[in-house]
Amino acid sequence: MAADGLPNVQLLRRGVERWQAGHPWIYRADLNGDPALDGGEVVRVTDGRGWFIGKAFYSKQSKISLRWLTYDDVPVDADFFRQRIQSADELRRRALPGESTYRVIHGEADGIPGLVVDRYGDHLSAQFLVPATEQRKALLVDLLQEHFRPRGIVNRSDVGVRNLEGLTPEKGLLRGELPGPVTFHEGLVRMSADLLEGQKTGAFLDQRENHVMAGHYAHGEALDCFAYVGGFALQLATKAKSVTAIEISDAAAAQLRQNAAANKLGNLDVVVANAFDFLRDAVDEGRHFDTIVLDPPSFAKNKDAIAAALRGYKEINLRAMQLLRPGGILISASCTYHVDEQAFEDMLASAAADARRRVQIIERRGAGRDHPVLLNLRETRYLKCFVLRVL
Amino acid sequence: MAADGLPNVQLLRRGVERWQAGHPWIYRADLNGDPALDGGEVVRVTDGRGWFIGKAFYSKQSKISLRWLTYDDVPVDADFFRQRIQSADELRRRALPGESTYRVIHGEADGIPGLVVDRYGDHLSAQFLVPATEQRKALLVDLLQEHFRPRGIVNRSDVGVRNLEGLTPEKGLLRGELPGPVTFHEGLVRMSADLLEGQKTGAFLDQRENHVMAGHYAHGEALDCFAYVGGFALQLATKAKSVTAIEISDAAAAQLRQNAAANKLGNLDVVVANAFDFLRDAVDEGRHFDTIVLDPPSFAKNKDAIAAALRGYKEINLRAMQLLRPGGILISASCTYHVDEQAFEDMLASAAADARRRVQIIERRGAGRDHPVLLNLRETRYLKCFVLRVL
Repeated sequence: MAADGLPNVQLLRRGVERWQAGHPWIYRADLNGDPALDGGEVVRVTDGRGWFIGKAFYSKQSKISLRWLTYDDVPVDADFFRQRIQSADELRRRALPGESTYRVIHGEADGIPGLVVDRYGDHLSAQFLVPATEQRKALLVDLLQEHFRPRGIVNRSDVGVRNLEGLTPEKGLLRGELPGPVTFHEGLVRMSADLLEGQKTGAFLDQRENHVMAGHYAHGEALDCFAYVGGFALQLATKAKSVTAIEISDAAAAQLRQNAAANKLGNLDVVVANAFDFLRDAVDEGRHFDTIVLDPPSFAKNKDAIAAALRGYKEINLRAMQLLRPGGILISASCTYHVDEQAFEDMLASAAADARRRVQIIERRGAGRDHPVLLNLRETRYLKCFVLRVL
Repeated sequence: MAADGLPNVQLLRRGVERWQAGHPWIYRADLNGDPALDGGEVVRVTDGRGWFIGKAFYSKQSKISLRWLTYDDVPVDADFFRQRIQSADELRRRALPGESTYRVIHGEADGIPGLVVDRYGDHLSAQFLVPATEQRKALLVDLLQEHFRPRGIVNRSDVGVRNLEGLTPEKGLLRGELPGPVTFHEGLVRMSADLLEGQKTGAFLDQRENHVMAGHYAHGEALDCFAYVGGFALQLATKAKSVTAIEISDAAAAQLRQNAAANKLGNLDVVVANAFDFLRDAVDEGRHFDTIVLDPPSFAKNKDAIAAALRGYKEINLRAMQLLRPGGILISASCTYHVDEQAFEDMLASAAADARRRVQIIERRGAGRDHPVLLNLRETRYLKCFVLRVL
C-alpha cells in the first residue's frame, strides 16, 4: 500500500517488458501472484524490484488483469477523467468539424479503458465494459454531463463482453430524457436511431464515413447486399440510377423503407431475401450491376470459425465481381475481428482470380476517424473496408 | 506462331499457377526455355499443353519477362489501348471529380504495363518503362493526344529502371508545346511544376491527397521536416498559426519561398538545414510543436538497407513524438518500398514506447486514388502515410 492508498500489483518480467513496450493490456499470467483485490480498483503497477511504473485499472475475472491508465504518478481522480474526455472530444472536433454525431470515447484508445461513449447530437449512449468504469459510472456520467450538456444519457451496457468481467448486461436511461428515436445526418442523408433498442449504441457509427464515401463512387445500377436500415443503400441512392437493397429481416427492411421515404429517395427497391441466395440467383440469371456494396455482419465469433468465414466472404465477393460491369465499383467490408486485413485482401485476390477479373484497389479504409486505435493495440482494429474497381 | 502472327511463350507449371492466380508478372525462371525474341513483342501466353491462356508484353532483359495484358484472345491494337486509356480516365473522373491534375495511367494497375502518365491540366508527362511501350510510343502518344487534347506531352523516361530493360534514360518534348512551368492546385494551394526538370514527372502527385488532408489537421505551431518545394508545408500554413519548413537544398528552399509568396502565406519560415540535425537540436532546446509532418525521401534503395532505413525512421519519429505537445498531430510518411506498412507501423510503436507517449492512429493512408494498385500485385504499393495523435 503506497502513500496514495492505492494497492500495488507487481508484474513478472514479461509483463514489465510488455508494459514498457507500450502495450496497454497486461494478462493475468504476467502478474506476480494473484492480488487480493475485488476488481475495479485503480492500482499502482510495479516492476520486479517494486518500483512504480504506472497506474492501471484492475479486473479480477477477465484474462486481461490490468488496463493502462498512465505512466506517471498522478492522481486518478475526477480531473484525470475530465482531461481525458476533453482531449477525446478535441480530436473529434478537429477531425470531424461541424459534426455532432460521432464516437466520443473509444475505450483505451482515448485513455479510458472500458468506456465507450457515442454522441448523437443532444444525446449520449454509453457502455461501461469493465468493473472499474462500472463502479465509476456516476462520476463518469457527471463528467459527460458537464462537458456535453446533453438532453439525455443512455446506458447500453447490454453486451456479452460484460460477462467476461463478472458484470451482467444492463441498459436504461441514466440521465435526462429520451423522447424517442434520435435523428442524425450522414452526409446529406437523414438517419434515425433508437438509442435504447437499436444495434450497438443505436447505429453503426464506425461505418459512418464509409457510408458517405460509398455515395461518391455510386453510379448506374447499384446493389447493397446486407442493407440493414440503409446506411450504405441510402447513400448509393443519392447518386445511382437505381438501388436494390437486400435485407433478410422484415423489421430492418421496413425501417429501411421508412428511411428511404423520409429522404425522398424513390429509386430504392428493398428486397427481403438472404443475400447469399440473391447473389447466386443474380449470377445464374445473368444480371449485372455498376456498384455493389457488401457489408455483412461478422462471420466468425472466434478463431475456429475463420476458415468458414473466409469461405463465406469469398463466395459473396466472387459473385459480386461476376455481377459487375467493367469499371464497376465494389465496396467490400468486413467487421470480423478474427479475419485481419491481410487475410481479407488475400481472399479478395483469390476471388478475383476465380472470377478471371482484374481488380484495382482504390482505397483501403477502416473505421472512421472518431474510432482511433492505439499503436501497439492492433487487437482493437476490426473493420476493413476496401474500395475496389473491377475491370 | 498463331493465326494472328504473334509468337507463343510457354510457361512452366509454376508460371501457369501464378498466371491463373492473377499475378500480372511472370519471371524468366517460370518460362519454358528462352524465347527467340527481341523484346517488346506482344506474345500469346500458353500453358504446358500449349493452350492459350492470355496475352502479355515480353521483355528480353528484365527479370520480369511477361507483363499481363489480357486473358482473352483479342487483338492488342489501337482500340485495345484506347479502351484502357478511357477506362483509366473514367476512374479519375469518378474518384476525383472536377480535378485536372492527377495520374492518368498507373502502369499495370491500369492495364498498360510499363506506361505511366500524369496530367497537369493541359499538359501530360509520360514515362515509357519497358521495350513494349517504348516501341509503341508513337501510337500511345497519338491515343493520349486524341483523348486529352493536351497542349503538350512531355517524355520523362529519364529513370534508372529503364536500364533493367536495356533502355537508356530519355527526356524531352514529345508533342505540342511547353511554354514553362505549369501551375496546378492542391486544394486551395497553388503549386507550380517544371515538367522537364522537376522530380519524377514534375511533382509528387502520389502525396497530393495527403497534402490536402494535412491542412485539415494542422493547428498551432507546425513543423515540416523534409519540406522540398512545400507540398505539405503550404497546406499546413493555410491552417496553422506558424509553420517552420526544413529543407536541405537551397534550390528547393528558394522555390518553397516563392510558392509561399505566390500563395500569400506569410506565416511560413523556411530553414535550410538537415532535418535530422534540426530535430535533435529542437529536442535538446526543449522546443515544442502542435503539428509535425515527416515525409522524407526513400531511406532504402534495396533490401540490405532496410535495417538502416528503419533506424532512420525511428530516430525522426521518436524526436517528433518528443516535440509534440499533448494532442499534437504527427503525419508520418514513408515512400520506401522495402519498408512495408507492417514494418513501418512496428517502428512507430517502438518510437512511441521509447518516447513514453501514447499514440493514437487516426488514419492509415497510402497514395491517392489516382494511384490504384492491383489485388495480387502488392509489389507496386510503396507509400505509407499515417496520421497519428500523440497524447
